[in-house]
Amino acid sequence: MNAVEKLKSKFEQGLHICIGLDTDLEKIPRYLLNSTNPVLEFNKILIENTLQNAAAYKINFAFYEINGSKGFDTIYQTLELIPKDVLTIADAKRGDIGNTSKMYAQSIFGYFNFDAVTLHPYMGFDSLSPFLEYQNKLNFILALTSNSGSFDFEKQKLSDGKFLYQRVIEKVNEWNSKQNCGIVFGATNLDELKESISSFCQLPVLLPGVGAQGGRLEDIAKIFFDNENKNFIINVSRALIYCDSSENFPSTISRLLKEYNKSLINVINQKEL
Amino acid sequence: MNAVEKLKSKFEQGLHICIGLDTDLEKIPRYLLNSTNPVLEFNKILIENTLQNAAAYKINFAFYEINGSKGFDTIYQTLELIPKDVLTIADAKRGDIGNTSKMYAQSIFGYFNFDAVTLHPYMGFDSLSPFLEYQNKLNFILALTSNSGSFDFEKQKLSDGKFLYQRVIEKVNEWNSKQNCGIVFGATNLDELKESISSFCQLPVLLPGVGAQGGRLEDIAKIFFDNENKNFIINVSRALIYCDSSENFPSTISRLLKEYNKSLINVINQKEL
Repeated sequence: MNAVEKLKSKFEQGLHICIGLDTDLEKIPRYLLNSTNPVLEFNKILIENTLQNAAAYKINFAFYEINGSKGFDTIYQTLELIPKDVLTIADAKRGDIGNTSKMYAQSIFGYFNFDAVTLHPYMGFDSLSPFLEYQNKLNFILALTSNSGSFDFEKQKLSDGKFLYQRVIEKVNEWNSKQNCGIVFGATNLDELKESISSFCQLPVLLPGVGAQGGRLEDIAKIFFDNENKNFIINVSRALIYCDSSENFPSTISRLLKEYNKSLINVINQKEL
Repeated sequence: MNAVEKLKSKFEQGLHICIGLDTDLEKIPRYLLNSTNPVLEFNKILIENTLQNAAAYKINFAFYEINGSKGFDTIYQTLELIPKDVLTIADAKRGDIGNTSKMYAQSIFGYFNFDAVTLHPYMGFDSLSPFLEYQNKLNFILALTSNSGSFDFEKQKLSDGKFLYQRVIEKVNEWNSKQNCGIVFGATNLDELKESISSFCQLPVLLPGVGAQGGRLEDIAKIFFDNENKNFIINVSRALIYCDSSENFPSTISRLLKEYNKSLINVINQKEL
């Protein structure tokens, strides 16, 4: 299965939650600190207890790079624990000139063998094209992000009246000839989501910002389902993975994820009534 | 010495060339492939033969990440070879929401102990601020890059008539309260450089794009010196580090770097005549 097929198969099962492995040594249950590699051990337990109900796993590189080469090894080892039918996203937010992006793409898709990546659009087409050459992978390009800084540039108006993030979406659609592009759209921007959703066309959408950052799962899902669009994954990191600091965390997380999935199904059912 | 002091001391010696360690196993002299770590060995020889005449060293992370954790170790080991009075730049082009950028900053400035970093502006202020909290470091934020993709977004006109990259420069000046910001400005954009140079104010400028990408050293230097601005470093990677594939490469590189420095001095002298 290629990256898009993996996603579609999860959507058919009603699964839209991406679990963000923002694993922070300071925040994981204390008893795990006795393990050889507590971050890996936490990820292992998390994956084992969620793999049947998750649409994807997103590894936030920063949380691993903080430990240098050991962190990179932990990313590699974490990937080996994720079943091949679940999409893996390198949340690495790379982007550079062509000959450098070629190396980044080889690192993410070759060395690590991720299914998908997040990318910065700022430097334009040739900074993304080495990634877009990987037919079977998926490239989530930042459109509108969930943070307050999105006002500085992303929400700046261009001379033709469009916002910068809207131009990015337009361009990503143009660059999607291999059907391997997606976008990142922050879950804290409900009005912008309603306004822009028709421009997403065939692009899978990754929505971070639910939970700790303030976005609400059901609000997002409702907008997508109301627009007959199932092509989205909602990332949840902190609100899910640190929901219980006791030794019972595996079952608490498993239960919470099921509740998330149920609340999405409720949104669909309400629509159909 | 903090990052800015390191740079100033080099500028006083007339040194403005930053050496880009885009070290590619496919391109280094063949005889080095017998070493335990050919990339590190190449960097070691390169540094030893240029350290007195370089203004800075820039490590392009992509060329190391392609080897995963081993590459990260090579970055770490390369940094140990660079004298403490020469600026080290992590060309990592990071940028994420605040709590994630905090981790990236700790990785670059803490774990690796780089003096400086390159950053993506797209996500706005809070994506940069964890880096800007490091008073003694230097943050080169992408303004206008040297690649063709710069037309897609960076050179898009905003509703107030300014280009996006000009807005970025304006904002970076606002965010420079700790005097630890700089910008990246591609050396292939001479007209834009002439037009924008007065807006750089106190910001150190890192200019990639000379050599393989088509920019000319003297043209860049002339524009800066004509504007009484010495606050710039010109990055040279491929054109310098792969100028000789024989065993004589150390002396060839050393000589070529001296020629670059001489040609910059010629530009100053011509101005003063």
